[in-house]
Amino acid sequence: MRFKAVKGTRDFYPDRMALRNYLTDTWRKVSARNGFVEFDGPVLEYLDLFSVKSGDEIVSQLFSFTDRGGRALAMRPEITPTLARMVNAQINSLPRPIKWFSVPRLFRAENPQKGRLREFFQWNVDVIGSDDVLADAECIFTAVDCLGEMELSPQDVVVRIGSRPLTVAALRQGGVDDSAMETALAALDKRPKVPPEAFAELAAAAGIPAEALGKICDFQDAKDLSAVADALGGGGAEVADEIGKLESLMEYLAGMGAGDYCRLDMRIVRGLAYYTGIVYEIFDAANSLRAVAGGGRYDNLLQLFGGPAVGATGFGMGDAVLEILLTEKGKLPDLSAGLDCFVIDGGGGLPKKVLELVGRLRRGGIATDFSAKRQAVGKQLKEANRRNARYAVIVRDDTVGVKNLTTGEQTDVPIEDFLENPVAYMAGVLEQELRK
Amino acid sequence: MRFKAVKGTRDFYPDRMALRNYLTDTWRKVSARNGFVEFDGPVLEYLDLFSVKSGDEIVSQLFSFTDRGGRALAMRPEITPTLARMVNAQINSLPRPIKWFSVPRLFRAENPQKGRLREFFQWNVDVIGSDDVLADAECIFTAVDCLGEMELSPQDVVVRIGSRPLTVAALRQGGVDDSAMETALAALDKRPKVPPEAFAELAAAAGIPAEALGKICDFQDAKDLSAVADALGGGGAEVADEIGKLESLMEYLAGMGAGDYCRLDMRIVRGLAYYTGIVYEIFDAANSLRAVAGGGRYDNLLQLFGGPAVGATGFGMGDAVLEILLTEKGKLPDLSAGLDCFVIDGGGGLPKKVLELVGRLRRGGIATDFSAKRQAVGKQLKEANRRNARYAVIVRDDTVGVKNLTTGEQTDVPIEDFLENPVAYMAGVLEQELRK
Repeated sequence: MRFKAVKGTRDFYPDRMALRNYLTDTWRKVSARNGFVEFDGPVLEYLDLFSVKSGDEIVSQLFSFTDRGGRALAMRPEITPTLARMVNAQINSLPRPIKWFSVPRLFRAENPQKGRLREFFQWNVDVIGSDDVLADAECIFTAVDCLGEMELSPQDVVVRIGSRPLTVAALRQGGVDDSAMETALAALDKRPKVPPEAFAELAAAAGIPAEALGKICDFQDAKDLSAVADALGGGGAEVADEIGKLESLMEYLAGMGAGDYCRLDMRIVRGLAYYTGIVYEIFDAANSLRAVAGGGRYDNLLQLFGGPAVGATGFGMGDAVLEILLTEKGKLPDLSAGLDCFVIDGGGGLPKKVLELVGRLRRGGIATDFSAKRQAVGKQLKEANRRNARYAVIVRDDTVGVKNLTTGEQTDVPIEDFLENPVAYMAGVLEQELRK
Repeated sequence: MRFKAVKGTRDFYPDRMALRNYLTDTWRKVSARNGFVEFDGPVLEYLDLFSVKSGDEIVSQLFSFTDRGGRALAMRPEITPTLARMVNAQINSLPRPIKWFSVPRLFRAENPQKGRLREFFQWNVDVIGSDDVLADAECIFTAVDCLGEMELSPQDVVVRIGSRPLTVAALRQGGVDDSAMETALAALDKRPKVPPEAFAELAAAAGIPAEALGKICDFQDAKDLSAVADALGGGGAEVADEIGKLESLMEYLAGMGAGDYCRLDMRIVRGLAYYTGIVYEIFDAANSLRAVAGGGRYDNLLQLFGGPAVGATGFGMGDAVLEILLTEKGKLPDLSAGLDCFVIDGGGGLPKKVLELVGRLRRGGIATDFSAKRQAVGKQLKEANRRNARYAVIVRDDTVGVKNLTTGEQTDVPIEDFLENPVAYMAGVLEQELRK
């Protein structure tokens, strides 16, 4: 082949497109039933929008360029900066809490790896304008509702929930200075991904005192909230407050019916500096893949982008790891495309009646096709089967044969009767079949 | 505001997003019922993919850059080159005719104008692997089916259909050399857009002999196919053959019920060099906007991209002009987002029952929300109305009040009865309302 796709991008042939649509349609459906409304921004933004939240190093992972007007533009690697920009621009007219979701296509100038591509889709769900932990619960519940809708059970996936303020408290108690906090958090975030020795090195390099490391790990490994409190040695009112929030969160999630999926886990830190409260990541239960989703509370978001101090919380779920997981677990539904009916020329030639019927059925909302070739009825029936049609409508001079291609059952209808209202006839037949 | 959107891009706030989804969902629905299946490619392609079909000048209208590996990449300005690349890669395994559609997001490094943006969406419908004019009819019918679905009538829009081979024949008869054909076609394409004197200059510059111009204009202005044949002075077997194709096309379109929208118009030329057969553009009837859609047959497409000689035909319809047209004609449906029900705390606090109900209803597919604030029932009802909820579900100690927010009618149900299967209860109520 002379032309190839760029590495890390995907060609969505119809089968793969149906799978992508299944994921994005499910995201949209679940978002809507949880009271979120959809937004989107441009793919192209000014480059400096992306360095605000994630620092300058993100710029090296961006597709960016200078346009003919000399402006530095970038293809979005995430939607959150756009969300902040858009919400800030209308912050005084939007009723709060703002419950928005999006399914942006995102771009990263990285080397592709398993579950990590240069072009991908990501479901983003955010609540802005609420400080209440109920808003965090709403986001997590929505993620769990989606997993359930995709038939992933608590045996397949788990939401691990940590707390940024408690992690910061543990690091402070261990002697980490606030100026070194960001680096220390980034080191802790890597702990589950590297061997203990490598982690000890990382921690030392990040300014975590060696003598404090054991206690910090005890905090991270605490099995429940009382063990968390113990590891923090009480810790004062702020710690108690944060523990109270985690308690409420778990209570809300259990109350809504999502408790089975959720587990407290102080090893969840999240890499980015900007989280300010509860943080979480969703993993496959076997923990063999990258995170399916991640999120948390980031109350400084709007301020970072020049807006007011307003609470914000949300998560992102990418399509790449989710697709791998659903495939591994055998949870992908049958997505083969089909037709409601295939109109067959039972005589020969291409009588006007065939075209007329095709046109009327399509305009009436019945997915209809016919053979582009003039060929024998048997060959047309074969094509109908190959196209996954549910019914064949065989047009003859005096009658129309309506044949169920699954059961083989056929009803012959006088052609004048059928032509009176073919849409109503076929809609009736299809509805009856659905009811069975 | 500190951050702004890039000029020529759009922020899709929820209202605008709902409109975008209405367009793209209608495109998808109409495509499927006409027997097309969806595909998509990457946004990023190698730059040279885009110079093949449209020549080097397109490169100046692209967002392009060199990646860290030194590869010249571009953001796609159209999907047809990707379509050709993907079909060529699987040409031997794909059953023909290949009926594919796509709704790509496209990018152009141009100065934005009315109906022409730097980021936009375009519906693409193509039939590959058929030389039959029936395939052209299928594409045009699908476009018309979409216009009808959007309640645009033949009084609102018109499909103008021309013929590239007949136009070439008229130019040849006028003495235009094949080596100057591309330039001459481009000049003719501009005729409807400029005053007659300017057109005469353009034509002269493009190598169309001044003494032939009148006859070529007569050909373009011919009112019907016999006038077309007259203008070409008979013109031999090839001309007769092409006229026969136009006759068949109009017959097929009329047979399928799309005839009212379609009109032969030899002034339709299409700018690009690569068309080989029937060409068409869709305009608002008042002809006050840019084309809503344009397309035609381009049998050399796959060969251009290194593939076999296979017939191909299709069109593209952008979202920007369509949106302007639908707005001007007042044809946009009510797209305001709504909820099925809003659960109201009829007591105080936030009883577990409210959260439980919200969770169960959502998981059961009922779009449900509740007030994030603990506030009086009256205020919660106001919020329910603001959120466009169809029902309020008022939870008290012993009963649940199910209130239709349109009619004000309310039914009180003992709480144990309601909690037995709230999803079935609400699904029943909602279905009953739909039937009314």
